[in-house]
Amino acid sequence: MNIHPAAENRHAPAALLDALAARFAERFSLNAAQREAHGRDESWHIPAAPDGVFYPECTEEVAEAVKLCRAHKTPIIAFGAGTSLEGQVAAPSGGISFDFSRMNRVLAVNAEDLDVRVGAGVTRKQLNEELRDKGLFFPVDPGANATLGGMAATRASGTNAVRYGTMRENVLSLKAVTAAGEVIETGGRARKSAAGYDMTHLLIGSEGTLGLITELSLKLYGVPEAMAAAVCAFADIEGAVASVIETIQCGLPVARIEILDALQVRACNAYSKLSLPEQPMLFLEFHGSAKSVEEQAAEFGEIASAHGGSGFDWAVKAEDRNRLWEARHNAYYAARALAPGKNGMVTDVCVPISQLARCIRETRADLDASSILAPLVGHVGDGNFHTIMLIDPDDAGEVAEAKRLHDRMVTRALALGGTSTGEHGIGSGKQAFLAEEHGDTLPLMRAVKQALDPENLLNPGKLAGI
Amino acid sequence: MNIHPAAENRHAPAALLDALAARFAERFSLNAAQREAHGRDESWHIPAAPDGVFYPECTEEVAEAVKLCRAHKTPIIAFGAGTSLEGQVAAPSGGISFDFSRMNRVLAVNAEDLDVRVGAGVTRKQLNEELRDKGLFFPVDPGANATLGGMAATRASGTNAVRYGTMRENVLSLKAVTAAGEVIETGGRARKSAAGYDMTHLLIGSEGTLGLITELSLKLYGVPEAMAAAVCAFADIEGAVASVIETIQCGLPVARIEILDALQVRACNAYSKLSLPEQPMLFLEFHGSAKSVEEQAAEFGEIASAHGGSGFDWAVKAEDRNRLWEARHNAYYAARALAPGKNGMVTDVCVPISQLARCIRETRADLDASSILAPLVGHVGDGNFHTIMLIDPDDAGEVAEAKRLHDRMVTRALALGGTSTGEHGIGSGKQAFLAEEHGDTLPLMRAVKQALDPENLLNPGKLAGI
Repeated sequence: MNIHPAAENRHAPAALLDALAARFAERFSLNAAQREAHGRDESWHIPAAPDGVFYPECTEEVAEAVKLCRAHKTPIIAFGAGTSLEGQVAAPSGGISFDFSRMNRVLAVNAEDLDVRVGAGVTRKQLNEELRDKGLFFPVDPGANATLGGMAATRASGTNAVRYGTMRENVLSLKAVTAAGEVIETGGRARKSAAGYDMTHLLIGSEGTLGLITELSLKLYGVPEAMAAAVCAFADIEGAVASVIETIQCGLPVARIEILDALQVRACNAYSKLSLPEQPMLFLEFHGSAKSVEEQAAEFGEIASAHGGSGFDWAVKAEDRNRLWEARHNAYYAARALAPGKNGMVTDVCVPISQLARCIRETRADLDASSILAPLVGHVGDGNFHTIMLIDPDDAGEVAEAKRLHDRMVTRALALGGTSTGEHGIGSGKQAFLAEEHGDTLPLMRAVKQALDPENLLNPGKLAGI
Repeated sequence: MNIHPAAENRHAPAALLDALAARFAERFSLNAAQREAHGRDESWHIPAAPDGVFYPECTEEVAEAVKLCRAHKTPIIAFGAGTSLEGQVAAPSGGISFDFSRMNRVLAVNAEDLDVRVGAGVTRKQLNEELRDKGLFFPVDPGANATLGGMAATRASGTNAVRYGTMRENVLSLKAVTAAGEVIETGGRARKSAAGYDMTHLLIGSEGTLGLITELSLKLYGVPEAMAAAVCAFADIEGAVASVIETIQCGLPVARIEILDALQVRACNAYSKLSLPEQPMLFLEFHGSAKSVEEQAAEFGEIASAHGGSGFDWAVKAEDRNRLWEARHNAYYAARALAPGKNGMVTDVCVPISQLARCIRETRADLDASSILAPLVGHVGDGNFHTIMLIDPDDAGEVAEAKRLHDRMVTRALALGGTSTGEHGIGSGKQAFLAEEHGDTLPLMRAVKQALDPENLLNPGKLAGI
């Protein structure tokens, strides 16, 4: 197991560990297994355990513990479900991991206003289970059962974003604790406001470096009258992508439109016991009235046929839909199961839809010419896709080759007007790309970080690299 | 004419005025009438003329002039069309007004990606005229023919926001000049990104206090196959509001749903030569397929009937729609024409939709009990409404009474979970309310301002009050 080189060099002072233990008893842990579990996410990045793990139960406790950490100049790392993919939760400079799993209550459902208030540790699946009998749902769905606090902190997205937007579009307000241990509320429950700087969006995507999110007000949506899932196989990936582009450009309001290349389909068949044809495929979902869903499916069917799509079939039964999306959500785990013992270097570019075909074609060609096994999958309705490069992190040759492919992929996406990360964030894994993409705004980002966290205690070293 | 008390006390150094004149010739003006015109917006707030007006033609010129101003520690005030409503463009500490009217080119229409690149001085009407033959449109519509740069700077909104969102949801990226005179681009053309702090949203709504917006990438939408406008009169304002709430809560995707109280209808009839019944009314617009528009109109008709709506009628002809919306857009001017010689103190609260009926009812009762004439109008689908209090700014009694009513209205909106401004912003007019609404985040806002504009040269004194 790799250990981050800096992790051994810095430890929280014993006085802080003693103070946290005295104040929070069993909710502050120095247990090695817990520390180790909190220093790693689901990525290939080198883990680094924090010095201790704190399980707050309310915002006031978070504020109190932040003040203690601050008094001892000790780093503070927010931890949701540990499902991040760019090393966001690792503690390379040591510090205290704040695990929000006990702040997991749905605090208020305002059905009339289509909004909800939750603790940061509520997961997206938990929220949707609690909303089920109210005919409402929260759409943002990154696949993993992440916490909503973590999803806001990484500006998460996923399969429904093409229709409902990402966390950027679906957070009304955040309660957070600042680096000084002050409690703030960034917005209100009004659907719009022009009152001052947009501190809500400043915290969304800040990856725990500007404040600790403790509660969220989120937008909700009525469960559509009808939903239908569909799969469609294509002779080649170009036909699948062309169908996506045409679907988006003609304004068809698909709720989900996901690509899986042949290798990813093979992985899903094996992992989720499906028997899909091992060809490039699109997974779709349509939401609306029964009639509208039927119309959308028919319209998509025509588009797909014109691009060589075959076996187009759609399922309205909830169990069939769920089986399909469960398989899609497990795509990452399925990909990793293709090469047991290896890790997955996950990439995440997003380009304007007009550039998607070229970006995917050139990326797939790069991968095919390499020795690395790498399924391709993505939320292509947004122009967003991933490859999962299966590598042994201890094999310097494989790591170098994956990095080379990754560099080429990001450089290509940026040249096409896209971004180095559609939804996974920067963490420690994409800092060089952040500098490449936003070199001109990076000094401002660092100025904002310096202004809000002058002692650099909040997830230090991540995102803007301070 | 009132002159802001501070305006006489500070002037830009002659050396700066000379340098700007030498460099930009006739595009830098010291003309008194131009200065005076650039120190006022459409509000009742006390105007304050800048020391000079600069008309840049490109971003590089903006950067150059910012560096000159900075060298002379002179304030810089961005000016779009001067249609702001909270004193945003006044120069109470003197300085140079940067008028973006010459940066008025549509730079690139990317129809395939449904986005457009514009200079900050392009107005919303100009953009939509240039898009007309492409079957695309930009939806954000604050009524006034504001510039898109100004609309982004004030986080503008308006009649279409209930369906298409505000500037917050419709800007993909901004080119801006920082206080240091550096040129930045805050985003890209990808539909989503998780790359670093959200500098785009930090600039949206910052009212020229964090940077000068020079270009924008905006989302576009396909012109709907069919559009229909409708009007519906109600016996009382409660019935109109109840219809709005039910329309939103049942998910009917209205494109516009606007309230006008009886007094505002009287004003519009007189100003726009209409003959609407002088009762509370809703103005609506439906977008979609011909069939969907028909269904939406029918569904709304049922809701309205149940709440005492009458005379519900809908118009699909473009000329009839335009006449109606022209009248709605001129509501502010129509209101002011009710009391020639008076000015309008415009209010702008926004509450969760479940609180809208109570907020409007109590506000209208307050106004009815006062001597001040004040029509009520609003984008009620968002929970956002305005009163236009017709006062003589030189009559201390009227000003005091209007302020009392305004205070009560904002306090009420905040108590109901709303905001002190849905779309007009803070400027100099709402600073006390910003402190009331966001007292906890105000220190962070000020820290951000200090970090990005350490010498306090960008629209000083506005928004966060530094």
